Amino acid sequence: MTASPGTVDEIDTPAVLIDLDRVERNIARAQQAADAAGVRLRPHIKTHKLPFFAQKQVEAGAVGITCQKIGEAEVMADAGLTDIFLPYNIVGRQKLDRLRALNDRVILAVTADSTATVEGLAGTFADTARQLKVLVECDTGGGRCGVQSGDEALALARRIDAAPGLVFGGLMTFPAPGKAVEAETWLAAARDLLAAHGLPCETVSSGGTPDMWRKPAQGVVTEYRPGTYIYMDRYQIAKGAATLEDCAATVLATVVSRPTPTRAILDAGSKALTADTLGLADYGELIGEPEARIVALSEEHGKVELLPESKLKVGDRVRVLPDHICPVINLYDQVYLVSGDRVVDILPVAARGRLS
Amino acid sequence: MTASPGTVDEIDTPAVLIDLDRVERNIARAQQAADAAGVRLRPHIKTHKLPFFAQKQVEAGAVGITCQKIGEAEVMADAGLTDIFLPYNIVGRQKLDRLRALNDRVILAVTADSTATVEGLAGTFADTARQLKVLVECDTGGGRCGVQSGDEALALARRIDAAPGLVFGGLMTFPAPGKAVEAETWLAAARDLLAAHGLPCETVSSGGTPDMWRKPAQGVVTEYRPGTYIYMDRYQIAKGAATLEDCAATVLATVVSRPTPTRAILDAGSKALTADTLGLADYGELIGEPEARIVALSEEHGKVELLPESKLKVGDRVRVLPDHICPVINLYDQVYLVSGDRVVDILPVAARGRLS
Repeated sequence: MTASPGTVDEIDTPAVLIDLDRVERNIARAQQAADAAGVRLRPHIKTHKLPFFAQKQVEAGAVGITCQKIGEAEVMADAGLTDIFLPYNIVGRQKLDRLRALNDRVILAVTADSTATVEGLAGTFADTARQLKVLVECDTGGGRCGVQSGDEALALARRIDAAPGLVFGGLMTFPAPGKAVEAETWLAAARDLLAAHGLPCETVSSGGTPDMWRKPAQGVVTEYRPGTYIYMDRYQIAKGAATLEDCAATVLATVVSRPTPTRAILDAGSKALTADTLGLADYGELIGEPEARIVALSEEHGKVELLPESKLKVGDRVRVLPDHICPVINLYDQVYLVSGDRVVDILPVAARGRLS
Repeated sequence: MTASPGTVDEIDTPAVLIDLDRVERNIARAQQAADAAGVRLRPHIKTHKLPFFAQKQVEAGAVGITCQKIGEAEVMADAGLTDIFLPYNIVGRQKLDRLRALNDRVILAVTADSTATVEGLAGTFADTARQLKVLVECDTGGGRCGVQSGDEALALARRIDAAPGLVFGGLMTFPAPGKAVEAETWLAAARDLLAAHGLPCETVSSGGTPDMWRKPAQGVVTEYRPGTYIYMDRYQIAKGAATLEDCAATVLATVVSRPTPTRAILDAGSKALTADTLGLADYGELIGEPEARIVALSEEHGKVELLPESKLKVGDRVRVLPDHICPVINLYDQVYLVSGDRVVDILPVAARGRLS
């Protein structure tokens, strides 16, 4: 960490502020919950994209980290992270070559949900000195990627197991929100089917912050990869997974216009807050202004509806709690770590914009 | 431009491809339309964020460029652009200091819609050797920033005119979509009111690509600042302002999963396409796959619904036409300029992420 004295008052807007005390509390609480549930924690770095916090998560007891793109994993490996899970179908020559290079320097695992993906991996790693671990991705109701049945999982696990350069590593899912129980039932049946055919699952991986506090049933999930818990956001509050006091990341913005008694305009629009509401009403909320509603965003303007008695005026600086913090972080080259009103450090968002 | 041989086939995904031939056609057509209408063209660079294209727009006949943030204007000034309009309320010490420095090196104009904003500008430029031009922003129905009446415009213009460091430059609006006529009526009345009080408007500035092809009525608008016309997008097609053949920017993506006969997953999610649909159904469209629908995005996955007979398979590379291209461009560190399947150049998106 480099020295960066100063206070929040000196930061130009819009800017992301990260409350370091809350981050440390969120990291510790999630680790305790995972330990109590007997589940390994493998945090997803998509939320923060910072090697600094990835290291903190590992120091707190995480077995490793989760990345979604090879580019993110490369950044984390460069920073010294050593155990990385990439729950994604890696497809195409460029990515397969990079994956092989990455596998030579960290403990790596990926997922696959099709023969086509497994064939690409098998060909790439056929002559490797270091095998690649591959888990089968399962669609347990989320409706995204994943094999559709235990039989499909078995067929794919066999194909992985038969490839000289690959090792079958288990099952992975991203459950539909609120459907963790159904996902576990699906996974337990598939795990048992595979075990009956001589393919035990070393790892069964699930994810999603909203469901992370419930005690996993059936003992099937061995690893959990939540992301958002480190910062939390308005969506997590709506889901009952966090309180406002848990939320560590806010966007500092300035009121630049008060054209009518009931309207204010912020210098934070979709380029600072994203258009991603995860289905919530409003585009985030103004902390300490419960009657104010962020009703519309254009790229550089946030439109706020106020009660006529609001005292907000041009030049006021406000903090916005985003609906979905992960894509917001991806818009910023740097974030400000703060403790109260003191700026502790300014960190580049090293894995921002790693699209491939 | 640096040499960068290669073809589209060699580009890893997701990536933004810019069809250079279409860009040049779009630039020429907009300039011709502006010339024919007797309106000065001042393109908004928010869409491309590239000095290279800003220069091309000026070479084609634009009187200058429009930027929305000081950081964007600084990038453009560094690249040699000399005439910049910043239609924004510049508020706060940090920004005002930067604005003064910028005004020393380019022909600059800004907007204001409140006494508070004008006071900040007046104080900053009180002792300047080089006055700052300030236009009054008018809310002609768009419901964002802007004074609410001609009387308010007059009062603010007088305050600007009375400040030693400022010059009153005219009126500016961002009209509500499809309400260009109403905006012009509003502006004509305000212009006449100000002229009657000895404050003629050198410039009356309007914007928005969808309405740029209609002939301005009443001769009130003297400058137009469209942005999206250089690339066009699915929204502009929906508004009748473009055809698919005008659209110059697409996102190259790879099919990474075909979990069911009617579902494909792309490696382009909201981090590659944004969640910003501008109200359209679907998150962009697959070019050449009219039956396919991009029905949902998570950060790294695009979910496509297909007809069962679709031949799309894992590994196929597709081009996605985004709904709203401007925020998409802001997600990418670089774009690929192409002519047919040949990569002509790779350009850094120099003004990406300039939030303040």
